[in-house]
Amino acid sequence: MRTLGATLEGVSSGAVEIALAPGPAVSQQHGFVHAGAVSAIADSAAGYAALTLMPPGAGVLTAEFKINLLAPAAGRRILARGRVVKAGRTLTLAQADVFAETVSDGEVRERLVAVLTATLMAVQGRDGIGD
Amino acid sequence: MRTLGATLEGVSSGAVEIALAPGPAVSQQHGFVHAGAVSAIADSAAGYAALTLMPPGAGVLTAEFKINLLAPAAGRRILARGRVVKAGRTLTLAQADVFAETVSDGEVRERLVAVLTATLMAVQGRDGIGD
Amino acid sequence: MRTLGATLEGVSSGAVEIALAPGPAVSQQHGFVHAGAVSAIADSAAGYAALTLMPPGAGVLTAEFKINLLAPAAGRRILARGRVVKAGRTLTLAQADVFAETVSDGEVRERLVAVLTATLMAVQGRDGIGD
Amino acid sequence: MRTLGATLEGVSSGAVEIALAPGPAVSQQHGFVHAGAVSAIADSAAGYAALTLMPPGAGVLTAEFKINLLAPAAGRRILARGRVVKAGRTLTLAQADVFAETVSDGEVRERLVAVLTATLMAVQGRDGIGD
Repeated sequence: MRTLGATLEGVSSGAVEIALAPGPAVSQQHGFVHAGAVSAIADSAAGYAALTLMPPGAGVLTAEFKINLLAPAAGRRILARGRVVKAGRTLTLAQADVFAETVSDGEVRERLVAVLTATLMAVQGRDGIGD
Repeated sequence: MRTLGATLEGVSSGAVEIALAPGPAVSQQHGFVHAGAVSAIADSAAGYAALTLMPPGAGVLTAEFKINLLAPAAGRRILARGRVVKAGRTLTLAQADVFAETVSDGEVRERLVAVLTATLMAVQGRDGIGD
Repeated sequence: MRTLGATLEGVSSGAVEIALAPGPAVSQQHGFVHAGAVSAIADSAAGYAALTLMPPGAGVLTAEFKINLLAPAAGRRILARGRVVKAGRTLTLAQADVFAETVSDGEVRERLVAVLTATLMAVQGRDGIGD
Repeated sequence: MRTLGATLEGVSSGAVEIALAPGPAVSQQHGFVHAGAVSAIADSAAGYAALTLMPPGAGVLTAEFKINLLAPAAGRRILARGRVVKAGRTLTLAQADVFAETVSDGEVRERLVAVLTATLMAVQGRDGIGD
């Protein structure tokens, strides 16, 4: 996340928000944030949301995710809001909605640019996998 | 891709290989390449593979991808091999297999660490979307 | 849908509800509704939701869907609620949540058993593809 | 599978083939096999392929699958070929390719119509979940 310049904006039980300020390192040649960076913050938001509901000491692994990319991610900030849909003993389903935030005439607007669903697995005591 | 330190290793009709040399910028705290970086090179390999079969001047957009993460991506190189499964007029399905390359006793080994399937859309003449 | 015994319970702009009354034809050997039947009604709910926002005469094709199965689908009714997340010119993203409805002490309860996201494509004038 | 009229055509270690003979029960109004039926046999082929590599007494649950639908499923038979991509202790990734078989001038042809990837979970001793 540090490589991308992403920041943790909010954490509550089962929900996490991550923001990314677009810059040259995460943008493709036309000024949009690269799909890889959008996916990375969406996956992280989903994974950390799952982690908030796991027992202390547990780590979280992404088993799979799907992302649907709906519109170019362009704006002053990209926001990924992750939330747990169903927390299970072994597997947790989390979803992240990604918004592009723009400012026009002093008004802040958000546009949905991507939706991710992820299967997360809680792991205990495997070396190198804790959060 | 430059941000990640990824390089294009091979291009043929309908197939593309991208390599990533793990380093601190793309690794999480335990030395594995971050899932976001694995996804990014896999998505790029699938997308460029699709682009090789599209008409000149066309660009390619990822409509969606799913990635299954099978094992930690650790090794001297991470290789994403993308190939077109079905090229269509509007939509193309491409798949990318991601391998971690290790060297042990002078022998090079590859281990499958992730599988991605992606729906790519050809776009023509939309500003800012060409390849 | 007729083969499964599914019924259309509600239709509004961008949203569709389909119900399935579990019976031997759609159940596996332990009384749960088979994942294939759950997927079928979820995909149909998403697809019809997309169709409500398409121009007259258009048909809808499912390009892809992912379904996460969260719990066994057991109860007196299985309900798939589809809604459009983003309607686009070429592609539409729709989501369907599937609930198992049970009755206990006269109280009706719903439990989330599956979540589907689907990419739908509008098609015009292709023979055999209209709705 | 009995409801759909599907038959098990082949089983080996890590691979399963299921066939479906199109008929009115699984076809939509234009003679194509319904996406729900295609998904059901693909999911079953992937799940049974996973089951062949699990310990005796284990059952298999589909945690999630994604299917990309590439072409209408029309022909004299629909064949789903499932194979294990990676068998793990907790999770197994399996893939199924679905083909439509047609006969033209006495020649049998196969056309790829769908690709499914599924995450399967081995379960032991949970009532009602064994195979």
